[in-house]
Parts: sequence; structure tokens; C-alpha cells
Amino acid sequence: MAASPHPRRTNYSERVTTSDASASPERSPEHWVLSLSCPDRPGIVHAVAGLLAEHGGNITESQQFGDPDTHLFFMRVQVESAASRADLGAALTALAADFDMTWSLDVVGRPVRTLILVSTAAHCLNDLLFRQRSENLPIDIVAVAGNHRDLEPLTEFYGKTFHHIPVTKDTKAEAEAALLALVRELDVELVVLARYMQVLSDDLCRELEGKIINIHHSFLPSFKGAKPYHQAHDRGVKLIGATSHYVTGDLDEGPIIEQDVERVDHSRHVNELVAQGQDVERRVLARAVRWHAEHRVLLNGHRTVIFR
Amino acid sequence: MAASPHPRRTNYSERVTTSDASASPERSPEHWVLSLSCPDRPGIVHAVAGLLAEHGGNITESQQFGDPDTHLFFMRVQVESAASRADLGAALTALAADFDMTWSLDVVGRPVRTLILVSTAAHCLNDLLFRQRSENLPIDIVAVAGNHRDLEPLTEFYGKTFHHIPVTKDTKAEAEAALLALVRELDVELVVLARYMQVLSDDLCRELEGKIINIHHSFLPSFKGAKPYHQAHDRGVKLIGATSHYVTGDLDEGPIIEQDVERVDHSRHVNELVAQGQDVERRVLARAVRWHAEHRVLLNGHRTVIFR
Amino acid sequence: MAASPHPRRTNYSERVTTSDASASPERSPEHWVLSLSCPDRPGIVHAVAGLLAEHGGNITESQQFGDPDTHLFFMRVQVESAASRADLGAALTALAADFDMTWSLDVVGRPVRTLILVSTAAHCLNDLLFRQRSENLPIDIVAVAGNHRDLEPLTEFYGKTFHHIPVTKDTKAEAEAALLALVRELDVELVVLARYMQVLSDDLCRELEGKIINIHHSFLPSFKGAKPYHQAHDRGVKLIGATSHYVTGDLDEGPIIEQDVERVDHSRHVNELVAQGQDVERRVLARAVRWHAEHRVLLNGHRTVIFR
Amino acid sequence: MAASPHPRRTNYSERVTTSDASASPERSPEHWVLSLSCPDRPGIVHAVAGLLAEHGGNITESQQFGDPDTHLFFMRVQVESAASRADLGAALTALAADFDMTWSLDVVGRPVRTLILVSTAAHCLNDLLFRQRSENLPIDIVAVAGNHRDLEPLTEFYGKTFHHIPVTKDTKAEAEAALLALVRELDVELVVLARYMQVLSDDLCRELEGKIINIHHSFLPSFKGAKPYHQAHDRGVKLIGATSHYVTGDLDEGPIIEQDVERVDHSRHVNELVAQGQDVERRVLARAVRWHAEHRVLLNGHRTVIFR
Repeated sequence: MAASPHPRRTNYSERVTTSDASASPERSPEHWVLSLSCPDRPGIVHAVAGLLAEHGGNITESQQFGDPDTHLFFMRVQVESAASRADLGAALTALAADFDMTWSLDVVGRPVRTLILVSTAAHCLNDLLFRQRSENLPIDIVAVAGNHRDLEPLTEFYGKTFHHIPVTKDTKAEAEAALLALVRELDVELVVLARYMQVLSDDLCRELEGKIINIHHSFLPSFKGAKPYHQAHDRGVKLIGATSHYVTGDLDEGPIIEQDVERVDHSRHVNELVAQGQDVERRVLARAVRWHAEHRVLLNGHRTVIFR
Repeated sequence: MAASPHPRRTNYSERVTTSDASASPERSPEHWVLSLSCPDRPGIVHAVAGLLAEHGGNITESQQFGDPDTHLFFMRVQVESAASRADLGAALTALAADFDMTWSLDVVGRPVRTLILVSTAAHCLNDLLFRQRSENLPIDIVAVAGNHRDLEPLTEFYGKTFHHIPVTKDTKAEAEAALLALVRELDVELVVLARYMQVLSDDLCRELEGKIINIHHSFLPSFKGAKPYHQAHDRGVKLIGATSHYVTGDLDEGPIIEQDVERVDHSRHVNELVAQGQDVERRVLARAVRWHAEHRVLLNGHRTVIFR
Repeated sequence: MAASPHPRRTNYSERVTTSDASASPERSPEHWVLSLSCPDRPGIVHAVAGLLAEHGGNITESQQFGDPDTHLFFMRVQVESAASRADLGAALTALAADFDMTWSLDVVGRPVRTLILVSTAAHCLNDLLFRQRSENLPIDIVAVAGNHRDLEPLTEFYGKTFHHIPVTKDTKAEAEAALLALVRELDVELVVLARYMQVLSDDLCRELEGKIINIHHSFLPSFKGAKPYHQAHDRGVKLIGATSHYVTGDLDEGPIIEQDVERVDHSRHVNELVAQGQDVERRVLARAVRWHAEHRVLLNGHRTVIFR
Repeated sequence: MAASPHPRRTNYSERVTTSDASASPERSPEHWVLSLSCPDRPGIVHAVAGLLAEHGGNITESQQFGDPDTHLFFMRVQVESAASRADLGAALTALAADFDMTWSLDVVGRPVRTLILVSTAAHCLNDLLFRQRSENLPIDIVAVAGNHRDLEPLTEFYGKTFHHIPVTKDTKAEAEAALLALVRELDVELVVLARYMQVLSDDLCRELEGKIINIHHSFLPSFKGAKPYHQAHDRGVKLIGATSHYVTGDLDEGPIIEQDVERVDHSRHVNELVAQGQDVERRVLARAVRWHAEHRVLLNGHRTVIFR
């Protein structure tokens, strides 16, 4: 389904869900989440609320934001409605044409099909696997792929498939082709770089724009690039941090989704910073993945709007 | 103007502002803030958005929340509209009757007429006076009243009037009568207890319900009553806190607006906890006063909804 | 070895380590950690430093604290020395007699033999198992015991032995006897209640005094007892917390080791508080276990001194 | 008094205090704070503790740290002793020669003579003046100097002298000469740049090395230089911060004393970041000034050791 007149700007995939299969005239209501952005002007909220009301919608949660700098308007609505996706989609497509609107529609809580890329560090993968099982983090981890085999047992303990895709300087192009094939074959909507220690090519970044989330182990824009904890230790900072962001061709420059910090002191060696930082990294990454999967993250140029 | 069919439940005062005096047919748009709550049911957002659209409104910010436990719906909207207060008020009164709605309408940023009550501790008063002057905290401190004279010079440095209203066991009733007279004479919309070390009578609490904000120097519900830092030190807690809440007849039991904490360790004497706690107290109180003055705090039974 | 004239007050076990087996006259230096407390008076530091200097010690880290309220003195020293444990122990025993001192001596980083008790919630167990494997948390998890079998697979994935010890009202005494037998048989130094949903008997608490750490899912002393997140939600607090403490016969009243909080808002249902709270719980418990295992926690009456 | 064989490395001034004037043979004990650093080697703590014991000292608080990277040792001791400063000083001078030690000795709580430099922003000055009066921040604000007159009334309200020293491109050298004259005339030990919007010359930085504390309104090393909140807003960070550091010739590169952050979201305009940031700035600056004045900050190359 064409969700948007600006498909490049669409963050979210739309999918047919099982609940959508029914053609029964007496549907039970579904809980939808609608996210949209467009140039700001009067009447957007009224038009959207009107469209939803015409489809018997009951708004349960809603947030809006108009950016006075970019003159863009952002909205996220959760609404209960017995209308079919086809009907809602047709109405939204018409509305979007009027308002030059980018939108996405999904069912609240539908697990987003997610591929996790790893190297050897286990803390982020372990955290995502555990949360997905126990806390209803709304993702469906369809596979884990690693350039090393270290995390295969952990992956399999959680009943997931591990793909070993080694990467060397000479095989980087093939490895990326294998990743992209996996993304297509498994119908992947979100790729999470869970301390995946490879820089992706510009082509792959573009191909998956808005669909790759990385965790960087510093409070960006400080300490870009390699060995950020060593840089932080050398500078003598009093807080270390982590940053989760969308991946773009500019290394460590993509739109920031979430950041957090922890206090350190002079007595910490670099390797203690690394260990302590793992706590921040996994917490920050898990929040970013959750908000993305709940369609709470909207792009505003190279910045993000987060409707928490 | 009668803002609501349930005036007892109204949190906010409505006032005629200078911008409202104009009767010109070509008004320039005003920036309004509308807060409301009502029993939850389909169609509220659509009805409100429709009402605002009919008055040429452009929504700049909006938040909604439906509480699944209390089945109440809460909404805060900022909207630009050239409509007069009278017109908007009439439309809202009609709508409120349909939805059994409590609402308030104000101009964004209008300073709320505020009376600050103090005893001898200066930190909260100093903070509110300073913020009001320098950071556009949207309150107008119309007077400061104290049961001691210690804070008169600080008050007068900021060009405010200080009222000395001493309180003894025998004169408590008279003192409260004097306070209430001040509230009425100065058209006070908000009373802030900035470490005012007197317990207000039930009658006064009822009279000013929803209009008195207190700062308690503990992380409630821990350490109610007197000397909370001594209680905290004795229990050996690792974080101390402060709580800002609406005052009700139940001491330290009113609806919580904001809380925060700071880390302490075993080496801190009680008097150091007291000094360190002043930082948390003034920060927490300032946030609560700001959110109240910006109509971001709505009552949900004995809890609060905060639209930040 | 009798470490102290007040054995009941000793927090830590002393053990013969492999490095102690050598009787060679040219020992390579060992890294020791010495923790002690005694009534405060002049000369303690000098006496301790002198004793260590006599044994060729080089102090690498040291912290002291004299409590003006209890008139007790606390000290933790890390020292490199080639002296044997027997020699150091004899000297310390003599010193302790002079100063009425409680002390413990251990090798820095020696893993503390730990038994983890669980019911069905996995987050704390998963966290401890993961940290122990990956971050050098200095514990040796010698077994996991649960009153349900739910966490047996997770335990076994990490190569640990799971003991199923069911508890009913009628079998509580037998279950505790089985636990105590396990503690003795496995030479357990530390018992961690990782969301173990059983109240231990006074007898067991006394038997293992200072050796059991619990995680309570509230910011104590608020919300003691059952269902703290429900209590917190009902009170409308703006931060939820967790508290790690030594277990005593007084439920949720033991000496606090660590606490932390996370911000919540009005939109969170109780079950979301529960999920969000898991993050705080596991973080707080892991810190408490680490500090205990590193001999950083000293008892000061019903409070703790933490040398971080 | 020559406090050190490496006077350039000495952070702290030594002064004769009134309590030192007595030549009585039966002195009442004074509470001293001794800070020192030297190349690490065995025996330092024993030697220092021995020296203090010989002077009847009772250690009330002590912290040590040996940096494995720089091989430097750092120590801060609070000790009660009836010995005279002359006697203690002579003994320390002898010890320092043996250990190549930099040291300072002061009376606990003695207010450090402080000059505050300001431009037009009041929040940091107001905070320091208020804390000094009410919370026993151990500084004596001997004067405030500003390149604008805006903060003269606030300064005078607190009974302090305001010096107006205007700065233009052409008069910068004269202005710095006037500042330096003030420092000498008033016997200033610490200069605080409380949002003083002038870059000091290299000469002045060298002249007052280790005696000037600045507050930078970003989480360094991010957003050095001008308009950090604008930079932060443009980058879309999710936390804003402030950094207090010693001033060196390298702009915003001096040793960091303290940092902290606050959460922001997409809805904040730049001017709101500026207002919110004032809270962090004053908190961070006040902590740095306190720790410096309590001799808790020791230089470790271009980093700091903080004994809190």
C-alpha cells in the first residue's frame, strides 16, 4: 500500500495484519496508531480528527508539535476504530494529498520485524532478547547476524536463528549484499546495530534509510569515531554517555533518538568505564528501539521529534 | 466569567486580559491555552478541534490522555485564534454542557497572580523571585507574607511588598483571616507555601482548594510530618528528595505535582542533608509552580495529570 | 581463622586462597583488601598504616570515615604485600584486641561464593548471571535455588546448577532447612534474593545475618510490603524506585545498601510501572552485590557505610 | 611560607589564620585539611600518618588515590591537632623533600578569598551570593567585578563591593591589569568566572593558573566556543549540560572539575534551552567552587582528582 506521497520520508512500514484479514461487516474495533508530519498550517488537527470520527474512531492518546523553526507539524494518534485498514488508508491517502502529508498507520503493539547485527559484545543483544521475551518490547527478532560466531549460543538459547556473515576488507561488499538479502528475504522492517563494529557503506545506509538504529558508546557529538571511552578517560570527563541514532552515510552524525549518561570519577580505569558504559548503552538502545517500534519517533530534518 | 459547570473542580482562574479589551472587528490573533477534563467517550477531540476550527484556530500544541482506571479524559491545547474570549467562552460553555466538561481558558504566558508565604528559610523565595525576574516564570508575585520578618529585605530588593502576619497558637484564626483577606484584596490566583512552617486549617485548605502549592522536604510518602531530613538520616537512605503538592486538609497527602531526588552518602551529617536538600526543594517547587501557571496540571482524583 | 573479637559483627568471610598456599620465602606480592571498624580514637590510621608498612605493604587505595553520631571509625584499605595471610592475620588479631576492632581480610577480586534465590521473575537473575560472565562482577554463583522451576533453563544456559526447593505453608520449615543445608554444603558466603517472593523466618535471618541481600521494588521506606508498584501508582508518585538492603527479621527494614529511582508519568499503567521498575531493580541489586563482594559495605548500626 | 618544592603545582594558598596567632603552650586542637600529591611509591601513607601522629593528630577523614597511568599518588586528610602551623609546616616541608611532594595545609572551613567576575547574566552570581550567605559555602566573596554595571545592585544587596571594569578591544590589556591589581590588593585566592563573557589572555591565565574556575554552558568537549545552546539545539541532543573547569590558555580545554546534564526534548526552543540550562550551570559551578574551597580538587596532569 502506498502510504505516502513522499515514500522516501516514510519512517514506518505498513503491513497487513491478521486482524485486517476479516471482511466481516461487524468488525470489532482495532487499536490503531497513526503518525504523520506535514507543513504546518491551520486545520490539520481538525481534519485528522474529523477523518477519524467519520470512521467511528475514539482517540485514546494524541500528541502534536509544530516546529516554529522548520514550520513542520508532527502528530501521533492512537485511536480505536472498527474501520478496515483499506478504508482508513484510502481516506488518509486523500487527506495526505491535500496537506502534503507523510503518514504511517499501524496496529498498536504489532511487533516490528527486526534484524539485530552484532560482533562479539553481548550486552546489547542480551538486553534486547531478554526484554523482547519478558517485557513485551514490541519487536519480533526475526534473526541475528554477526561477523563473528561468539553470540550464536545466546541467540539460540532464545530460540532465534543466527547467521554468520564474516566481514573482511576484501569481502565487505559481499557481506553487505548478504545482509541486504537477509533483510529482503525476512521482510525486515528494522535493523539494530547492537555494537556491530563495522561501518556500513553509503549505499547500504541509503537503501535502509530511517530503518537502521545504532548505539554509539559516547555522548555525541563528543568522542565520535573509535575508542570513545579512551577519549573520555583522557579528557577527564565526569559523566560518560551513550547515544542511539539513525544511521546515515555520515558516521556518528545521524538523527539522535535517545541519550543518557552515568557519573564516573577519577578512580575509574578505562576498562571500568567500558564495563560501566555497557549499562548506559543497553538502556539507551532499548529505549530507542521501543520508541521506534511504537512509532513515537518522527524525523524533523536531521533531528527527531519523540512523542513519549 | 463562569468557566465551568463544575466550578469547584476548576483549577484555573479566568481573567479578562488587556488583549481582550479590544472590540475591533479585525483582531490580531491571540495565543490561547485551553485545559479540560471530562468523562471519556468517543468524539471529544473531534468536537474540541471542530469548535476551535470554527473560531479560526490554529492548534500549535496539544496533548491528550484517557485514564483507563478513572475513565476520565484530559486535554490541553494551545491555539492561535483571533476570536474574542466572549465568543470562545460561549462556545466552550455549550460544549461543556454536552460532555460534562470542566475547562479553563487563558492567554499563553499571562502571569498568574501569586502570593508567596514564608517563614525564615530564604532559598525557595529567593529562587522564585529570581526566576520570575530573569526567566519569565509566568507568575506575577503580587505580595510575600511571612510569619517572621526575616525575608522582608530580600522581598523588597525585588520590589515586592512584604506583609508581616505573625502566628501564635492563640492568633492562628486571625492570621488566617488576614491571609484570606489578602488573597481577596489582591485578587490572588495562586498561593505558594515556600517553606511556610505553619499548618493551614481545614477551612482555609477547602477555601483555596487547588490553588495552594506546598513544597515538602522529603520524597513523599516517606518521611511525612516534622524533621524529614532527620528521619531520612536515621533510616540511612541513599537519596534525599522533595515533593511539591497541592495542599489539602490531609497533611502531606495532597495530589503530587513533582518530585525529585539527590544522592547522599554515609558521610553527610543531618545539617548537610538540610543544605543539600535546599537545592532539590527549590528546583521541585519552581517546576510545580511553572507547570501550574502554564495550566499543565490537571487533577485526576487525588493524583495529577501533567502535560509537559 | 577467627577474624575478629566480635564474630557476630563480621561481615565478610575469610578464606584461604591458592596464593596463600605457598610457603616460599620469596613470595610475589598479593593485592589485599582490609575492612575494619572500631570505636573512634586517635591513632587508628597510624597503627594500621604501621602494621601494613611492617609487612612491606604498599597502600593503593584507602578510605576512612569517623561517624560523629555513633563515635565509630570505619576504614577500607587496598594494599599490595608479599606477607602471608597467616602473618597479616596474626598482626591484625593483635591490633584488633587493642582497638576493639572488627576486621576482615580478603584478596582483591576473589569471587565471593554466592547462592541466588529466585521465584519466577527472571530480570534480576538474568542480570547477575550476565554481569558475572561478562563484566567480572566478583562473585562465583555456586548455585541458583527457586521455589518454581521457571528459571531452570536460564540458569543452566549459564552452566549453573538449579535446585528446585518448593515452598508451601506447610513445608516452609523444611524448605528453609534445605536452603540452609545448601548454604553449608556449598560453602556459601552470600545469599541474594533476586525477587524471591518468600518471607524468610526470623531464625534463618539471624543465622545468615549480614549475608543476605534483598531487592525491594520500591524506594523504601515508602511502599513496604506487597505490591509496591500498585501502591506507588495509587499515590501518584512521579518517580519509582528500588532498594537493596540486608535482610533482617524486620521485613523491609534492614540496613539499606543502595537505592535508585526512575521518572514515571501519569500515563503509565501499573503494569508499565512494573516493567519499567525492572530496570531499576536489577541495576540497584547489581550495585549492592558488587559493593558487598568488594568489601565496600560496612555496618554502622542499622545504617551502612559504603566506600565506593 | 614555602609550602612546596614545586610551587607552580600548588593549588592552594596557605595563610596564617587567627587561630594560628596564639603562642600558648596549651593550644586547643585545630581541624586541619592536608592535601598532597607525589610520585607513587610504598610508604607514603605510613609516613604521613606517622607525621600526623607525632603532632598528636587524630585523623577524621582521609582519602587516597594512586593513578596507575600517571604513577602519581594523591591524598587528602582532615586531622585534628593542637600543633602549630609552623611546626606542622616544618615537618611537612621535610617530608615533601623526601617524597618530591606537593602539599597544602589549611584550616577546615576557612573561607577562601574569592573574586567573582561577571558580565550581565545574574544566575550564577545570585546563586553564589545566596549560598555563601545561607549554606556556609566556604568562600569569602571579597569583591565582584563586571564589565557591565547590570549586577551592581544585586552585589550591593548582599553587602559586597562591585567594581566596574569595562572591556573593549582597545582596553583589554588595561582591563586585565586592573583585574590583576584587584587580585593582588584584595589578596584574592580564587577567581570565579560566573558567566564572564570575555576570553582572558594567555598571560593572565598563566599568572593565575589553578586559581580561576569557569563555567561553560555545554557538556564539554561538545559545543566549545560561542553559543553552545544554539549548537546543541541544532544537533538535536536529548540532554543539555554544563561544565566547570580550571581556566588555561586553551579555551574550554582546562581540567574539568564537574559536569552535569538535564533532559530536554524536541519542543524546546533555543531560548528555553538557555533558561533551563541556567539551572545546570549554577549547580555545577557551585559544586566546583565548593570542592575547590574545601581542597577536594587535585590536579593530575590535565585531569582532576576529586575527593568528595
